[in-house]
Amino acid sequence: MILNQDKFKEFEFIFSPKSIAVVGASTKQVKAGTMYVHALLSGGYRGKVYPVTSSGGQVLGLTAYSRVSDIPGDVEFVIVSVPAQAVLEVLDDCAIKGVKIVQLFTAGFLELGDEGGRRLEQQVVAIARRGGFRVIGPNCLGISHPALGTPLGPSLLIAEPGAVGIISQSGGHATKLISQGIARGIGFSKAVSLGNACDLDIADFLEYLAADLETRVIGAYIEGVTDGRRWLKVASETARLKPLVIWKGGSTAGGAKAAGSHTGALASADAIWTAAIKQAGAVRVDNGDEWADVLLGFQHLSRYSGGGVAIIAGLTDGGGGDSVLAADSFLGAGLPVPDFGKETLAGLGKLLPRAGSILSNPLDVSQAGGRLELQEKAFRLALADPAIELILIIAYVDEIFTFLPKGTLESLIDLWTGLKVEQPKPVVMVLPPGLSEPERLKAQLQLSRAGIPVFPSLPRAAQSLAKIGRYYKGL
Amino acid sequence: MILNQDKFKEFEFIFSPKSIAVVGASTKQVKAGTMYVHALLSGGYRGKVYPVTSSGGQVLGLTAYSRVSDIPGDVEFVIVSVPAQAVLEVLDDCAIKGVKIVQLFTAGFLELGDEGGRRLEQQVVAIARRGGFRVIGPNCLGISHPALGTPLGPSLLIAEPGAVGIISQSGGHATKLISQGIARGIGFSKAVSLGNACDLDIADFLEYLAADLETRVIGAYIEGVTDGRRWLKVASETARLKPLVIWKGGSTAGGAKAAGSHTGALASADAIWTAAIKQAGAVRVDNGDEWADVLLGFQHLSRYSGGGVAIIAGLTDGGGGDSVLAADSFLGAGLPVPDFGKETLAGLGKLLPRAGSILSNPLDVSQAGGRLELQEKAFRLALADPAIELILIIAYVDEIFTFLPKGTLESLIDLWTGLKVEQPKPVVMVLPPGLSEPERLKAQLQLSRAGIPVFPSLPRAAQSLAKIGRYYKGL
Repeated sequence: MILNQDKFKEFEFIFSPKSIAVVGASTKQVKAGTMYVHALLSGGYRGKVYPVTSSGGQVLGLTAYSRVSDIPGDVEFVIVSVPAQAVLEVLDDCAIKGVKIVQLFTAGFLELGDEGGRRLEQQVVAIARRGGFRVIGPNCLGISHPALGTPLGPSLLIAEPGAVGIISQSGGHATKLISQGIARGIGFSKAVSLGNACDLDIADFLEYLAADLETRVIGAYIEGVTDGRRWLKVASETARLKPLVIWKGGSTAGGAKAAGSHTGALASADAIWTAAIKQAGAVRVDNGDEWADVLLGFQHLSRYSGGGVAIIAGLTDGGGGDSVLAADSFLGAGLPVPDFGKETLAGLGKLLPRAGSILSNPLDVSQAGGRLELQEKAFRLALADPAIELILIIAYVDEIFTFLPKGTLESLIDLWTGLKVEQPKPVVMVLPPGLSEPERLKAQLQLSRAGIPVFPSLPRAAQSLAKIGRYYKGL
Repeated sequence: MILNQDKFKEFEFIFSPKSIAVVGASTKQVKAGTMYVHALLSGGYRGKVYPVTSSGGQVLGLTAYSRVSDIPGDVEFVIVSVPAQAVLEVLDDCAIKGVKIVQLFTAGFLELGDEGGRRLEQQVVAIARRGGFRVIGPNCLGISHPALGTPLGPSLLIAEPGAVGIISQSGGHATKLISQGIARGIGFSKAVSLGNACDLDIADFLEYLAADLETRVIGAYIEGVTDGRRWLKVASETARLKPLVIWKGGSTAGGAKAAGSHTGALASADAIWTAAIKQAGAVRVDNGDEWADVLLGFQHLSRYSGGGVAIIAGLTDGGGGDSVLAADSFLGAGLPVPDFGKETLAGLGKLLPRAGSILSNPLDVSQAGGRLELQEKAFRLALADPAIELILIIAYVDEIFTFLPKGTLESLIDLWTGLKVEQPKPVVMVLPPGLSEPERLKAQLQLSRAGIPVFPSLPRAAQSLAKIGRYYKGL
């Protein structure tokens, strides 16, 4: 897929503007507009920031202008946060100034479900066409480009720069994905919350992210699209280039109704979406946790074709129950948990006693009694087995603190990251949440930085890896 | 179901013994036996504790005896933690002493899958019959009675006393459920990890917990049963008296194989278990997170017949996306999310502006802008609606800290618990995990103490409430 130069240029203005005006930045109250200005300054954005407010004066130490057209320098990007009835006047003024992009935080358009909202949104588009600028929104948080220091929306939320690009019709879902990303080590290239998407729509952003070199994986939360045919074409082309993970909101009648009130999205039957996502070769998820899981997995696994998984449990205490759950979870998700070969079994037999162990796959190493050198040998034996494409290790941070000597968590993290670095097969971890959450979150980030995705449960790891395996296998 | 007096007496020895001997409590090394002694003393158990070790001497300040039969006083309960080949001799000695119950921590029996292990286990049962005592295990952590101060297994893990009784063929799964319970406010009446269950089996403990007045809800993790007919009869009778939540491990071929190596459980086809659990009127779950979710729900909801759910999102910022997800999750799980009545809608219309709100069910209160008095009015309007049986509120602790003034979390907790106390409809919360985990865990416990179950995601809340609703509806 080739993005033409004009379009690419347009997206330069969207994600890397040299100047941003914020209309609706009150000098008196902490309104969303003021918060947008604060967020740009705090995020480290290094372009020009111009607050615009009818009263003029100063906003957070910056000179405020009463209209966009009063701003002396160039203005490429305008964030609009004024009541809906004041939007058209602002847009007329943006046209006079010759801005490139307008991002409409303002709500009260198509999503109201009445004639007034629908007409107002049509007028927005008409002014944009005449004025030669493009519109993001309305009813949206807008764009974020972490490497440039632009946070998502009027909050201070800014992701770590990384390889995951996201397009979301819900500002809330985008916000929560970025929050999960901060906790779990997902880095983001670009993000956009585009709300009603009256002008620039999901297909436009998909096209761009498909061509964007910073972006290796794409996540999209979709409530509805207006041009289904174009969407399917772009999604298919995108999914051939990089993993595309789609969460379709409104899969039930009530969900579709809520989506209509949320972004004015028109309901299509869920069966149509199921077929379209499959035809596009994209990966479907159904909620925010799964969206984060699969994006995290793709971030770290540049290949995994759904082959044999070695599972190791019992690092801190009895791993028998987890071995059963792991087998049920992975086999239930359609991933193979093959028997170990003779050499592997012979090696394990020398390492661990029979009583209290399960010397097969899933492997219960509890009889290593927390001795890391034995655990490490077991991991390496499993990894060396030719039937194994990926190793999954489950450990409990609470129990590491309870049962094993001080400093063991750090030693284990070294051991696990060592495994990842020294051989080519992917290493995946499950660290279930517990009472030692600050320590678990820290471990999770350290592992993610070393290329090891961490999931909170065996079933969630299994479901995500199965989807990732099917994607790469389908290529 | 009536438990005869002899059986009840037997279970008094199991869960409330006046004296416990621990065989295999080394004076030199920190072995499991020593840890059992330590755990009993730390847990606050007030009966007699007798360490038994071949060398005699002292263990943790207590006189150690070289044999159970050397102990001067009565011994009701014996924990055995010696190598498998030494077990029979210990049991012969227990018979001489006239003990009532032997709990075999020792592994290396039926689960080895060979003739030696099978025979050894048969010999254990034969000695117990001759000696007039009952056996828990082998290959198990054994019993815990939190109100009496007996922890689960040789760790210091002790639950809050409460109403949930559990029976588990996996010590690991029981341990993790109790850990989750500590974090989420699940209280436990009695717990047993029974491993291979060579003598006292799942049906025996089910019968007891069904009759036990401390226990209002029962959870069971099962890998296999030997007498399927009796199990089904007891499970059916139990589920008529109190909610019975069953996690069947080994639902796949590989899981069943792992279960065989774990507790010697024999594989039955999963379809048979599915039918049996349904016929018994029990509730089925498939993993530890769901087990905890459903048990927590039953702990707090003494009735919920699967009726109309009011869902409220957007307490901290835009709740549109969550409204869509909530509708998809609840409707997808088969629970109704009914339209609000005219009065409710009229009240909400006066409370919140149209732009940026979703004034239907699910309700997005983001335009209350964090003003708690408006949120509270919205909650009360939803609760008063005659179509509503239960209210579910989703909030993000991270965002409460980010967007709302200091002290807001405490005020919100007061508000939510107030709702619960002042009217009869159940209040359920979703508090997704994030970066402020210590604060979120604290809030979760406070809410649980006030009778509000807290789930980590909308889909998990929906799945659990649907199961709970079906159970009560089926009565």
